[in-house]
Amino acid sequence: MAEETAEHHEVIVLGAGIAGLKCCEDLHVRDVDFIALEARDRFGGRIYTDRSGKASYEIGPSWAHDTLMNPLFDEIVDSDYDFDLYYDDDEPYYFGEKLEDGDFRSYRVLQVVEELKKYIELAYFQELGRKDVPLKEICLNYAFRQRKLLSPEQIIYAPQFLRLLELWHGISWEATSSKYALVDNVGRNCVLRNGYDQVINNIVKKLPPDRLFKNSVVSKIHYDAKNIELFTTDNHRYTCDYLVVTVPQSILQLEPEEQGGIKWEPELPERIETPLDRMSFGKLGKFVFEFAEPFWKHHDTDRFIAVANPDPSETETILGALKHNRVPTLPRIDEEQLPRPWDFPVLILNLYRVNGVPSLLCFTQGPLTEYLERNPAEAWNYMKPIISRLAKKPEDVLEPENVISSQWTLDPYSRGSYAACRPGDDPTDLVIQLTRGIGNVRFAGEHTILDGAGAVHGAWMSGKREAKYILIKTGRMKGEIDF
Amino acid sequence: MAEETAEHHEVIVLGAGIAGLKCCEDLHVRDVDFIALEARDRFGGRIYTDRSGKASYEIGPSWAHDTLMNPLFDEIVDSDYDFDLYYDDDEPYYFGEKLEDGDFRSYRVLQVVEELKKYIELAYFQELGRKDVPLKEICLNYAFRQRKLLSPEQIIYAPQFLRLLELWHGISWEATSSKYALVDNVGRNCVLRNGYDQVINNIVKKLPPDRLFKNSVVSKIHYDAKNIELFTTDNHRYTCDYLVVTVPQSILQLEPEEQGGIKWEPELPERIETPLDRMSFGKLGKFVFEFAEPFWKHHDTDRFIAVANPDPSETETILGALKHNRVPTLPRIDEEQLPRPWDFPVLILNLYRVNGVPSLLCFTQGPLTEYLERNPAEAWNYMKPIISRLAKKPEDVLEPENVISSQWTLDPYSRGSYAACRPGDDPTDLVIQLTRGIGNVRFAGEHTILDGAGAVHGAWMSGKREAKYILIKTGRMKGEIDF
Repeated sequence: MAEETAEHHEVIVLGAGIAGLKCCEDLHVRDVDFIALEARDRFGGRIYTDRSGKASYEIGPSWAHDTLMNPLFDEIVDSDYDFDLYYDDDEPYYFGEKLEDGDFRSYRVLQVVEELKKYIELAYFQELGRKDVPLKEICLNYAFRQRKLLSPEQIIYAPQFLRLLELWHGISWEATSSKYALVDNVGRNCVLRNGYDQVINNIVKKLPPDRLFKNSVVSKIHYDAKNIELFTTDNHRYTCDYLVVTVPQSILQLEPEEQGGIKWEPELPERIETPLDRMSFGKLGKFVFEFAEPFWKHHDTDRFIAVANPDPSETETILGALKHNRVPTLPRIDEEQLPRPWDFPVLILNLYRVNGVPSLLCFTQGPLTEYLERNPAEAWNYMKPIISRLAKKPEDVLEPENVISSQWTLDPYSRGSYAACRPGDDPTDLVIQLTRGIGNVRFAGEHTILDGAGAVHGAWMSGKREAKYILIKTGRMKGEIDF
Repeated sequence: MAEETAEHHEVIVLGAGIAGLKCCEDLHVRDVDFIALEARDRFGGRIYTDRSGKASYEIGPSWAHDTLMNPLFDEIVDSDYDFDLYYDDDEPYYFGEKLEDGDFRSYRVLQVVEELKKYIELAYFQELGRKDVPLKEICLNYAFRQRKLLSPEQIIYAPQFLRLLELWHGISWEATSSKYALVDNVGRNCVLRNGYDQVINNIVKKLPPDRLFKNSVVSKIHYDAKNIELFTTDNHRYTCDYLVVTVPQSILQLEPEEQGGIKWEPELPERIETPLDRMSFGKLGKFVFEFAEPFWKHHDTDRFIAVANPDPSETETILGALKHNRVPTLPRIDEEQLPRPWDFPVLILNLYRVNGVPSLLCFTQGPLTEYLERNPAEAWNYMKPIISRLAKKPEDVLEPENVISSQWTLDPYSRGSYAACRPGDDPTDLVIQLTRGIGNVRFAGEHTILDGAGAVHGAWMSGKREAKYILIKTGRMKGEIDF
């Protein structure tokens, strides 16, 4: 292509998710010449509210997290927008294939889970060189330490409750770093009852429509000290002074020839490539079932939590080893095998409580998400035995009228949910390197920030951070760069 | 008194509570010449198990705390002694004068309490220079910040739940530092069903009886670079090379002329006196009621928690101010006035669940303890309206057959329970200075240590620390002094 066809802007923002859009908003307020290039045919990225059914359903993020230290949430609370906030945080109802909430409570499993979390925290806090092991393995270390003090039910079920972290990270406990698995909630988590896409729409409304380009897939970025050039798959060429790359970490990790992959010229520096290789990407899935009636018990309960069955052979191994004062070891689960119901914990949001619609939203993780997103017709088959346990009588269970599935693992521009840590991964390195950027090539998104990592407000703050960087560098704003 | 009457020992340990006894144990194992001087007519100090009734009752500490980082507890678990451990940590049953557990749960108060605790943590963690205010006051700051997000019930009752911290510190929320009020549980808390005095007895059994002197009240300590001399109220004089002072902080704070007070020659150095003046002392009280039958509901519940009534005039002030976006301010409560039932939260241990005896053990704090310990006949009058709420029917309520009261505030050698922080107090300074000691004059006890501060294992570890110090200094042990 000839040089003269290139379109030049002071700033190009790659990706119009919340990070990119927030960056655009802050640039636009100061009259910066910018455009945003978005690969998808919609804005919002991994924020996606499905409105095809009886209510709005969050297929992306469900909550505003850390609401005591969430400046986006503060803005929402102070705004005049009709956000309709709801804390869906009452006591969850826990159940297993053969156990009820009351059983788990009489076993005092939740108390042991709290102690197990403290054990993990101490393990890595006290012994700085301690090797990071999978979440599953550290549960065995704890059980061994406390073997004289725990009941068999606590030994077997406390780890199954800890597995609920799978539904935060989107990967199974065998694949999860125990060092980085625990979630520190900084304030309650709040649902935006009218849909998270409102946040996106409110920003988009403030921006000139002719600056936002959908269906623009950038496949090559050339950068040097003087110029930044972008090439799209439909043969457009852009140049800019500053580039803000907000594509997901999973996209940065793609080979250039894969769909969505970006060819960097020169290649990304070693200091970014190395920590990039040392990070994983989660696969949180969401499946909404709409029914004619809410057939489940406990209409006033926000959340139902299906506790997975402990593997019977594992149970025997663990209890036997502990009885003889030995640390149990475990065979790895075969990930090729199709998961069965009760192999994984499932978090189920009761939308009848939240929105008054007779629908349930189920969360899935790691290998299960991939399987069900590829075979959405199987989703109900998989969940039916689990959800049926919530009905008063078996004959009350209805077939869903509608199933809405997430497609994140199939989406070439997402490839899953958000950044996750395998054992041994170190999220801090990558954040530090991406925050430094490469000269005028900047990075934003949930994977580029520590406070609010993986969350909407983290992505939003990272967009704000990069806009500020550019505004200060170009003399439009006074102040100090935050990092 | 003539010089020749002085009895000399290499080490004298002042006080035979758990800190002093543990120090003696470790010295004795290495054949150090030591004696311990105890003011009371019994060993154990503030560990005191009453065995005058139907079961053993803890009038001192009830729990082994922080059981994941409690070396004394590890020793107990690994020992052959018949300790009979029990975690009394199931969900407490919360009730108010007019509310039931279910009411508080449907208000989602506990969720707000967790957020309120996080708010306090962030306040002092994020703003290092932030002024320490009473626990009561910071609750209002939180309510103001969250005023648009909380229900009136949450605004009024969440602070009343936070007041349960009064029953950790032994002082009222008006007198409690909010900076140091939160308790970080490092593992579950465990009851020693057969009595905490077993721990004392097990150490005493290992020591030669002729080294432990009861009824020995030391009233004067003379120390210089060469000599340490102790004078008792019954005119004994001792000299030693090393002195380990394990008397409570409250006793260090006494004037020399008061009963139990110690005249130091020279006076304690400024570096110790100043932080000593900046620490308070808690007044946790315990009242056991023995009944003919367990007339209360919920036999399987370990703990009942009586939530205090919010003051009605305060309630109006708070809600009114928040409605108009103003930070509420509050008048101070008149401490001279006799407390009424429901003015204070009460923690009630259900000993029927723990030991099978039809008894209840009630915890009290600050001004209430002093009043009830002085007037033990009033204890049942005070608690009756509260405890009656636990009966199925009013006519089920029985009069107690026996009341056993703590006497810590009246005890001249305790003067209360354990170290506590008023707003502005700094516990770290005092710990650092006492740990340094004054040459060969050493200090131990719950008030001289950070990990395990105020707890049995903290006191025990501080005794171990000082024994180790002396063993290393005298060349009996190799190793490094820990501080």
